[in-house]
Amino acid sequence: MSAIANDNASVASCALCVQAGGEVLWDDGFARIVLADEADHPGFCRVILNAHRKEMTDLAEVERARLMNLVYVVERALREMLQADKINLASLGNMVPHLHWHVIPRFPDDPHFPGAVWGPKAREGAHPLPAGFARTLRQKLAETLGR
Amino acid sequence: MSAIANDNASVASCALCVQAGGEVLWDDGFARIVLADEADHPGFCRVILNAHRKEMTDLAEVERARLMNLVYVVERALREMLQADKINLASLGNMVPHLHWHVIPRFPDDPHFPGAVWGPKAREGAHPLPAGFARTLRQKLAETLGR
Repeated sequence: MSAIANDNASVASCALCVQAGGEVLWDDGFARIVLADEADHPGFCRVILNAHRKEMTDLAEVERARLMNLVYVVERALREMLQADKINLASLGNMVPHLHWHVIPRFPDDPHFPGAVWGPKAREGAHPLPAGFARTLRQKLAETLGR
Repeated sequence: MSAIANDNASVASCALCVQAGGEVLWDDGFARIVLADEADHPGFCRVILNAHRKEMTDLAEVERARLMNLVYVVERALREMLQADKINLASLGNMVPHLHWHVIPRFPDDPHFPGAVWGPKAREGAHPLPAGFARTLRQKLAETLGR
């Protein structure tokens, strides 16, 4: 299945149309997986549809399944690599209405636990990542997803 | 496909094992759809797996797809009924590690827009629902999902 063609609307002004949105770890043209630059949550990944679409129900069923499969692959990788206490998944997009899934490893000592990462901080100090995390995750995604 | 059997762990103390978690609009034994009691966001729905499972990757692929199909049905219903500016989807579960999807219609005049509903309020006053919303949504779910 190839990439989805973009609508014209809003693309020029959309942050996720004009920027990668993080360090790109994997991209097959349909969607990309990035390591977000979130200092409080250093393992925070995003799965971003490459085309400019707003809601999951704007996609065909097969496209939704394809996008969610990437979310689950990232969830599984983060669980295996980080032994996270919980994985948070969210597609919000109120500010950037271009489909992107937040995949966030959560730890009891992270700045917002047990609250949502968008809420008030409970403490300072990010839960540290193991050395070489981005490189290892990139390799793991390539092995799992085949590129 | 029948309901998933529960593990023993944590069930007795889990809020979503012992309570419905809102006004139940639909339930097929596998999962239920509830209208949450969230005063700031009166159209806030939740799709709750009936079995006690923590992460999406704890489910089989067919179970994940079945659960997400319910999320998309609710998303579509909320879009049609409320003309929401955005639908927010999230599976967090840091406090209640029992799979439940928040499906939240968002409006420019709602208390948190454009922020996440878990963040600071930008204003007071919920976006009102049309009269008979719960009843109409219940009927719509029954028509779409067949019970």
